[in-house]
Amino acid sequence: MSVGGPHLDSESLRALSRRATEWIARYWARVGELPVLSRAAPGQVLRALPEHPPEVGIAGAGDSWDRVFDDLDRIVLPGLTHWQSPRFFAYFPANISTPSVIGELLGAGLGVQGMLWFTSPACTELETRVLDWMAELIGLPGAFRSTSPGGGGVIQGTASEGALSALVAGRDRVRRAMGAERVRDRLTVYASTQAHSSVIKAAMVAGLADGPDDRRRLRLVDVDGSLAMRPEALAAAIRQDAAAGLVPCLVCATVGTTGTTAVDPIAPIARAIADASPPGVRPWLHVDAALAGSACVCPEFRWMLDGVEHADSVCFNPHKWLLTNFDCDCFFTRDRRGLTRAHTIAPEYLRNAPSESGEVFDYRDWHVPLGRRFRSLKLWLVLRYYGAEGLREHVRGHVRLAALFESWVRGDPRFEIVAPRPLSLVCFRLRHPDDAGGEWSAGDVLNRRLLDALNATGRVFLTHTSVPAAGGARIALRLAVGSVTTREADVAEAWALVREHAGGVLGSSP
Amino acid sequence: MSVGGPHLDSESLRALSRRATEWIARYWARVGELPVLSRAAPGQVLRALPEHPPEVGIAGAGDSWDRVFDDLDRIVLPGLTHWQSPRFFAYFPANISTPSVIGELLGAGLGVQGMLWFTSPACTELETRVLDWMAELIGLPGAFRSTSPGGGGVIQGTASEGALSALVAGRDRVRRAMGAERVRDRLTVYASTQAHSSVIKAAMVAGLADGPDDRRRLRLVDVDGSLAMRPEALAAAIRQDAAAGLVPCLVCATVGTTGTTAVDPIAPIARAIADASPPGVRPWLHVDAALAGSACVCPEFRWMLDGVEHADSVCFNPHKWLLTNFDCDCFFTRDRRGLTRAHTIAPEYLRNAPSESGEVFDYRDWHVPLGRRFRSLKLWLVLRYYGAEGLREHVRGHVRLAALFESWVRGDPRFEIVAPRPLSLVCFRLRHPDDAGGEWSAGDVLNRRLLDALNATGRVFLTHTSVPAAGGARIALRLAVGSVTTREADVAEAWALVREHAGGVLGSSP
Repeated sequence: MSVGGPHLDSESLRALSRRATEWIARYWARVGELPVLSRAAPGQVLRALPEHPPEVGIAGAGDSWDRVFDDLDRIVLPGLTHWQSPRFFAYFPANISTPSVIGELLGAGLGVQGMLWFTSPACTELETRVLDWMAELIGLPGAFRSTSPGGGGVIQGTASEGALSALVAGRDRVRRAMGAERVRDRLTVYASTQAHSSVIKAAMVAGLADGPDDRRRLRLVDVDGSLAMRPEALAAAIRQDAAAGLVPCLVCATVGTTGTTAVDPIAPIARAIADASPPGVRPWLHVDAALAGSACVCPEFRWMLDGVEHADSVCFNPHKWLLTNFDCDCFFTRDRRGLTRAHTIAPEYLRNAPSESGEVFDYRDWHVPLGRRFRSLKLWLVLRYYGAEGLREHVRGHVRLAALFESWVRGDPRFEIVAPRPLSLVCFRLRHPDDAGGEWSAGDVLNRRLLDALNATGRVFLTHTSVPAAGGARIALRLAVGSVTTREADVAEAWALVREHAGGVLGSSP
Repeated sequence: MSVGGPHLDSESLRALSRRATEWIARYWARVGELPVLSRAAPGQVLRALPEHPPEVGIAGAGDSWDRVFDDLDRIVLPGLTHWQSPRFFAYFPANISTPSVIGELLGAGLGVQGMLWFTSPACTELETRVLDWMAELIGLPGAFRSTSPGGGGVIQGTASEGALSALVAGRDRVRRAMGAERVRDRLTVYASTQAHSSVIKAAMVAGLADGPDDRRRLRLVDVDGSLAMRPEALAAAIRQDAAAGLVPCLVCATVGTTGTTAVDPIAPIARAIADASPPGVRPWLHVDAALAGSACVCPEFRWMLDGVEHADSVCFNPHKWLLTNFDCDCFFTRDRRGLTRAHTIAPEYLRNAPSESGEVFDYRDWHVPLGRRFRSLKLWLVLRYYGAEGLREHVRGHVRLAALFESWVRGDPRFEIVAPRPLSLVCFRLRHPDDAGGEWSAGDVLNRRLLDALNATGRVFLTHTSVPAAGGARIALRLAVGSVTTREADVAEAWALVREHAGGVLGSSP
């Protein structure tokens, strides 16, 4: 084979794909036996890799695929934390599945760009249709679908990018309504104290916050006992700001917070916004349902989106809990013109007749990036493979397992449940006599030791969060069920380990 | 198979991967025979797809893989513009290759998240090492590598996101140096009139421009006859702004503009910035080498990056011209602390011991998104497969073909070359007596008709740009060589078609 290589040679593709597929198949078969949290030390992987790039590669016979696959086993695998392990209970899950992996493979093999409708119509229109399907599946009103006069969906990379797009759109809308000069440096953003850090990051990137702690134009609104945003606190904040001459441009409601899956009440929040906003000002209401949106494929969880008809946009991540590879954030808007107007710039080299006709969607105008992968393929294959009923079964199975785990925790007086569990995340904590509060109290230290002991076993991986409580925030352990391979035995093993190590840390506790 | 499905079942993966691979292999074998530019009408794909999602999928025996692959052939393929066609000469190329596709497959099958070092150390450290390799391959100084005290590289999605990160970092640096209140609403951004639209979009997103035409805080600096930024015009703009109390925070130099691959002179630009900036102000100098950076694997093209040692960041896209699937923007900085300080926010649920030790890179702090795919795998496989010599041969082959095409154009008196050709993009135009200027002159109309006629053949796809000229901008055709399968016969066919259709439009010209 020449140095220039085969590039798109069908024969080498067949051979290599077989080998890589076999490697993945073997990985999947044993992922449950590997230590969930990587035990690699900082620099371990880096040091195992040559300092300089190869001058002559496999194509020039200077290297070999055998050595590449050997390096995958020897260097890469031990450096991975196994998100697909059945006992990965950390953060939120990052689902993959066979149809989704195949969708990624097909998209990679086609290698088209979907920045404009013109650059590959099917890349845009399959995405539009599949997003309409998703909107229907999670029960969004028709106004969020492309078949409505003003709505539609788009795949973004992450919910972080979705929050930024919403902020950019909200700022643009209020600026147009009020006049740019009148609102300059007077625009404000609202989210609860429990909102994801990406809202603060969006404010930083958009220039509404000078840093993560800057609250000049960003309000983190108080929450109630279930850690949901208090609409009356939101209204008060907007009113107080308005009195100071400030103008709201974005409110982000979180449906399923990262800390505890708390659910902000959308309808009361929408009413609070309408009541409190200055005359003529219509801030953008964005709903971040990154994890919880997936659960809404089941009718019994759709209450979480009650009032979503008042939102301007809503996003959720099938790449978390709906069997679809990262990256796949489904972002829906009722105001696609408002969204695209804020993101559009049309240099000559991108102009084309279909775009100018206004008949087509150019998705590059729906977010920051210009180039776009054919990401709807994987979602399409997931939906065709599982169907609505398969997705519901997937979600319900995890919720059932989380409920079971919660019942075990509640049955052991050494523990307490520290937040409501609407879905598949259980937040719990070892009780401690010194729980009067204060960060890093003796109780926090105890729970942190329990977490470290659990993760050191290699059999499970859990993470922690900080939960507001009377007398100060407290550390809680999070057990997030949602890995595609998790079964009851895995959750039972986690609980056995929690009990065992609780005994250990309590026994050695001062 | 149960409705819940196999999720990660090794057997179904093997079977489906074989089928998908075969489908791609057959696509690659015939991609050169398909109409390059899709002939789909708006709505054609959308209407061919069911309006509602399937209730029962393949897993529940309500659908079948046969039908999915049939839909791929029947609905999706005719709706694609074939970026991997050997006669795709539009925009810039979007290279893929067998090793890169396999890298995507492996990454999809592993399904890990690289947001923090902690969440999969190998995902971070392989990226760090491969980016160091790339920095070496394109001749960047050591200060851009992770092995230096302050530098390092990261993979971003697109150069658009890279420009936004640079702007956010530049703003943060100047804000810290001067005090936030002192520079509020006084920060300015500079790029040439030929810079990519993503710089303007970054200014919009970051809040420095109210819309694409807002030049309050954004200066598009004049260019010289070769369409490169005039450093003295930059210096004058910065000085004029400084006199008005404004403060520069970002200068974006473009190495290989999208319109014509013009090359802004980095060293003189760096001197202009140093000379003209107000005392104590050190704006961020970002180099956007999205296309041209790939060429710098060849020493003979590295002159384009002369002076890059003065830049704060530089990015280029192996997903354009270096055999690597989209998305893969390599972003290098000499000031990783400045970059990450502007992007960092650390909520409790992401805190972990390695991050707090400061010993590791957490790539989520290098850009907007939090979640991250294992994108370095594909780049690693490309480098190991081709080696440095394979990449150089790839680039040189395309440059040679573009030079050949340019010589043919120069040999035909009906045409003119309208911009210098440093690399693989030829910008040319049919001459017209009415070329005195003005947009959409008769000459422009003639060239637009030539472009439409060429693209209607289905054998080639070219796009156009607008080139500044005495008496007003003119439309030019762009022939961008760079598809991985393009051979001399393809470029010769393009030239034969250009000549033939030039005869047609000239003959019918009024």
